[in-house]
Amino acid sequence: MSADRQTPPLAVVILAAGKGTRMKSDLHKVLHPIAGRPMLEHLIASAAELQPERQVVVVGSGRDQLERQLGSRADLAVQEPQLGTGHAVQQAEAALAGFSGDVLVLYGDVPFVSTATMRRMLDRLHADDAPEVVVLGFEPADPLQYGRVIAEADGRITRMVEHKDATAAERACRLCNSGLMAVRAGRLFELLGQVGNDNAQGEYYLVDVVNVANAQGGHCAVVVTPDPDEVAGINSRGELAEAESRWQERRRDRAMAEGATLIAPQTVWFAWDTVLGRDVTIEPNVWFGPGVTVADRVLIRGFSHIEGARLDEGVEIGPYARLRPGAVLQAGVKIGNFVEVKNATLGPGAKANHLTYLGDAEVGAGANIGAGTITCNYDGYFKHKTVIGERAFIGSNSALIAPVRIGADAIVAAGSAVSRDVADGELRLVRAEQMVKPGWADRFHDAMKRKKAEKGRN
Amino acid sequence: MSADRQTPPLAVVILAAGKGTRMKSDLHKVLHPIAGRPMLEHLIASAAELQPERQVVVVGSGRDQLERQLGSRADLAVQEPQLGTGHAVQQAEAALAGFSGDVLVLYGDVPFVSTATMRRMLDRLHADDAPEVVVLGFEPADPLQYGRVIAEADGRITRMVEHKDATAAERACRLCNSGLMAVRAGRLFELLGQVGNDNAQGEYYLVDVVNVANAQGGHCAVVVTPDPDEVAGINSRGELAEAESRWQERRRDRAMAEGATLIAPQTVWFAWDTVLGRDVTIEPNVWFGPGVTVADRVLIRGFSHIEGARLDEGVEIGPYARLRPGAVLQAGVKIGNFVEVKNATLGPGAKANHLTYLGDAEVGAGANIGAGTITCNYDGYFKHKTVIGERAFIGSNSALIAPVRIGADAIVAAGSAVSRDVADGELRLVRAEQMVKPGWADRFHDAMKRKKAEKGRN
Amino acid sequence: MSADRQTPPLAVVILAAGKGTRMKSDLHKVLHPIAGRPMLEHLIASAAELQPERQVVVVGSGRDQLERQLGSRADLAVQEPQLGTGHAVQQAEAALAGFSGDVLVLYGDVPFVSTATMRRMLDRLHADDAPEVVVLGFEPADPLQYGRVIAEADGRITRMVEHKDATAAERACRLCNSGLMAVRAGRLFELLGQVGNDNAQGEYYLVDVVNVANAQGGHCAVVVTPDPDEVAGINSRGELAEAESRWQERRRDRAMAEGATLIAPQTVWFAWDTVLGRDVTIEPNVWFGPGVTVADRVLIRGFSHIEGARLDEGVEIGPYARLRPGAVLQAGVKIGNFVEVKNATLGPGAKANHLTYLGDAEVGAGANIGAGTITCNYDGYFKHKTVIGERAFIGSNSALIAPVRIGADAIVAAGSAVSRDVADGELRLVRAEQMVKPGWADRFHDAMKRKKAEKGRN
Repeated sequence: MSADRQTPPLAVVILAAGKGTRMKSDLHKVLHPIAGRPMLEHLIASAAELQPERQVVVVGSGRDQLERQLGSRADLAVQEPQLGTGHAVQQAEAALAGFSGDVLVLYGDVPFVSTATMRRMLDRLHADDAPEVVVLGFEPADPLQYGRVIAEADGRITRMVEHKDATAAERACRLCNSGLMAVRAGRLFELLGQVGNDNAQGEYYLVDVVNVANAQGGHCAVVVTPDPDEVAGINSRGELAEAESRWQERRRDRAMAEGATLIAPQTVWFAWDTVLGRDVTIEPNVWFGPGVTVADRVLIRGFSHIEGARLDEGVEIGPYARLRPGAVLQAGVKIGNFVEVKNATLGPGAKANHLTYLGDAEVGAGANIGAGTITCNYDGYFKHKTVIGERAFIGSNSALIAPVRIGADAIVAAGSAVSRDVADGELRLVRAEQMVKPGWADRFHDAMKRKKAEKGRN
Repeated sequence: MSADRQTPPLAVVILAAGKGTRMKSDLHKVLHPIAGRPMLEHLIASAAELQPERQVVVVGSGRDQLERQLGSRADLAVQEPQLGTGHAVQQAEAALAGFSGDVLVLYGDVPFVSTATMRRMLDRLHADDAPEVVVLGFEPADPLQYGRVIAEADGRITRMVEHKDATAAERACRLCNSGLMAVRAGRLFELLGQVGNDNAQGEYYLVDVVNVANAQGGHCAVVVTPDPDEVAGINSRGELAEAESRWQERRRDRAMAEGATLIAPQTVWFAWDTVLGRDVTIEPNVWFGPGVTVADRVLIRGFSHIEGARLDEGVEIGPYARLRPGAVLQAGVKIGNFVEVKNATLGPGAKANHLTYLGDAEVGAGANIGAGTITCNYDGYFKHKTVIGERAFIGSNSALIAPVRIGADAIVAAGSAVSRDVADGELRLVRAEQMVKPGWADRFHDAMKRKKAEKGRN
Repeated sequence: MSADRQTPPLAVVILAAGKGTRMKSDLHKVLHPIAGRPMLEHLIASAAELQPERQVVVVGSGRDQLERQLGSRADLAVQEPQLGTGHAVQQAEAALAGFSGDVLVLYGDVPFVSTATMRRMLDRLHADDAPEVVVLGFEPADPLQYGRVIAEADGRITRMVEHKDATAAERACRLCNSGLMAVRAGRLFELLGQVGNDNAQGEYYLVDVVNVANAQGGHCAVVVTPDPDEVAGINSRGELAEAESRWQERRRDRAMAEGATLIAPQTVWFAWDTVLGRDVTIEPNVWFGPGVTVADRVLIRGFSHIEGARLDEGVEIGPYARLRPGAVLQAGVKIGNFVEVKNATLGPGAKANHLTYLGDAEVGAGANIGAGTITCNYDGYFKHKTVIGERAFIGSNSALIAPVRIGADAIVAAGSAVSRDVADGELRLVRAEQMVKPGWADRFHDAMKRKKAEKGRN
């Protein structure tokens, strides 16, 4: 469907009424995430590039979960009871009342069909021979029990046949039916109205519209995906993990092709929206949650866990850096081991190298946050903000009790709990006097050793 | 051996006298752990389901290590010198004096033979044709140098043959001898008494009892395992790692089948006794040591390390949570990053989100433990307990010097070192006055910059 | 080249003038590290065992980076413009002026050719039939587009042929040209002088010296590596990751063969110079940077990150231990979770189990460093040292403000910020008085709940 010719309006119908029993989950199957995003959303995003005019999701149980997820972005059609895929698509008829363009039938648990493949299906529907139905076929390494598409060389379908009904010759054919389909809206519901349920399960199968159309002298066509993985269905947590693994593998390859070093690619997990610059180096074992942008020349050391964060040019983090949503690290910032940053902006060149929690904070350029520093941002009821000036030096093991403001070039002495603002260039020292008890420790050791010995005797 | 018919008493003889030279270890080979448990214990646990009346472990070197491990759970028979597998089994004769049931010969370094397979061997021994010896055979992908079992279709053994003595036709046979054997006790030692050592190594081979029995007109049978992996021997750290890997792979598949999401299954390591609920989500890179129970709807974020802990419903931990033995997290508890919990119970809804050590403690429901809190549970000699009341709020960077008790709804101010009990609803503030030195930091910066500059000149 | 016969002097010419465009990096391709060491250095180290008299690196762009890396260890010859591999080798002629031994031509992006293979090439050059040129051939699983070496059974080369010029019969030959070559210095430049650039790219190809030599009635020979992986070229970050993976896999196998337990070998990353003792146990997810030596019976728990550190016998670290350069852990030291050690020596049996930073420190034997201890080693300008005596006990959450010295058997009370020396056997207590405000917390809770409720109403 080239951009320069008029294309009919599109409606996408996504079937999501399966019970997902094998997932053994209270979460609706199509909401299980891959790369940090519900699988249904991957599919919707791919379809969105075709700018559909209507979008209908057919649901069974778990309807409320889908409503919460989708809001007004799609119409929900309820299929109750569930009498097969054909019956499911029929439930979308009301939502499509008055719609006269193309309908693309997708499956919520087949989330990685590409926009290009969808486009090829629609293009085929409008090819010169104008088939009534376009089916997406695939050629798996092992055709197993899949239904077969018996087609001629030009893609015209002779017959759709279930594995159990197939002849030996038909089974030798490796072209299988993915279930995805493109049909014009009006014709779709006409055909569906003529599909029967005369089969062992007593269900109405979507695939039968092909046979109905053929029987009425129409013709149907198959489009074959070059990548069988894109039509892989997800019916269990095992298949979910496999889909995640395939997704990650492709994303890692892309990251490397674009100029990032992944020392051990199989131990880096990206989210669907991770953005990576050039000459980024990532040590083994790094996790990206959603919402992360990484600029050029950033070094991410191992065991780092990053979500909702921005890392500007030349930033170095980790090992064991945890960046949470709202962490903004400006150019050259260093975040070291066992440091957590949440909803905090660090100015250029600021450093927090060890054992620190920076939450709800603004840290000025060049500030140095000592080991063991804690921003006490929560009083049990409200969150408060800490502001640290440029080039300020926060001594180790300090507690900054928010709301509090530390001035530029100010120094907070090690071990201080600071509850009042510190002015620019000021030293704040919150420290009791050093009490000395000479010989006390020796006497303590003697007493304790005696006690241990006594315990040993008893 | 169905439960409803009388079965003869069983003795299990486990051979563990091999030197394990290739392990290059001071630890006895059969004590090297897989999934957190010595490999020998995996085997003993599988055999235990058959309720053996006697259990004999034949040892060579490292006897003291096995004694410590097994205590009174098995008789140890010493094989010294080590003159072959047949000779090893003979050493069990004294320990089996007066025993007249079945003997199952197992190998300490072949730890994953299933109970079902053992049962099939014993069943076969008591089948209608009553063979004198039952051998466990397996069909490896590559038969390599294994000895072959030449048998008829009904399992009757024609001949056991070493690879080097086998004809081309015999080598074409892919059925190999695992070494495992079931024999009636009396007959076993009679047959062993007739086995010679007329071979290159001058050893007495257990397998020769089959040939002796056959030569005397008896007959022997082979039972074939459907899973060649279960008879894989472990002779090196490489094979140990492979066995661990196979074990983990199966356990991960089971976890997913039972309703847990493992985002990257190959980066989650379970222990032999890990218990997982439904709708548990586990991010990449999580390690389970022994003794962990996880209830439904628990979220375990990445880089968590968990041993001997209980996680009740809806608990969320990590990333970077370390739970050590005795950690009990009741419903809805949250444990965040860089937090260690040891021998401590947290009541429902309690939280410790950052950089905290909770050891030897009781934390009440709904308590909030601030970042950087440390329970000082050790005085160098003894451990002491910290008790924190319900809904108490422990300010950040506090040290709770045990033994100490913090009351319900009490507040400890940030940065406090608390050495005396805090009553219910009380505020405890241990903080020196804030000393202010205006301009001090500016003068310090000037002085230091001069000093740096001087150093640079020298 | 056996050690006991006279070998001619050797010059190594390493080609490193390729643009490395596919790496998409500002770092010179041959400086990208594998196992913590630039790939070029791996190659130089292997060649160094042959004690070359001269070493020339031919560079194009990125010359300054190579100069910084190599210093005076090699002559740099600049190839500008870059007119092919033959032209590249010609640039080394000036640097080799007066040299009359053997020349070995290597490639900076083919870093894992073994010393043994190099030696075989040189041996072949001096075999009785004295070929003029020795080429290193390899037999890849899939010969792809590689140039072929058409040779007789004794290794005499009939013809070198580019894939595109090869006949079907020649393409059926699986012996490919790696590009590596050994030639006597004088003959090399004579032959190169006669190589033309009459080809599509207009380049001078090194391989053509073989055809020139053959045309002049000389003869050339091929040596075939048994391991095609050793001539794998690295042209992209993907190939870099594959080379890293192959390197790590071999190193892990060696570690296990030598007596270390790697519970999940594929999650342990070694550096090129890691030294491991016997009966070392490594849990999953451990990273070794350069400069680590681990003695016998050391336990390294998961999620540990180790660089430039020495771990003596019986040391236990982790999980989540970070050892940085200069960490020296003497026998029996224990380093626990979320502990960072940098430039610090811990005496035998010293312990730092939780949430600690030890930098620029000396810790005496048997000292106990409490949870949350921080050595404040940096004042924003200079680093200072902390010295802790034998058996000293540092209470939790203490800040040791360097320079400072804690005596033997001394005790620092929990929560102390210690800025002055503590004598042997002394107790140092830096703690303000405990202020108590009975009922304050209850009143605070009431007030805050009211405030929350008000906010909720607005």
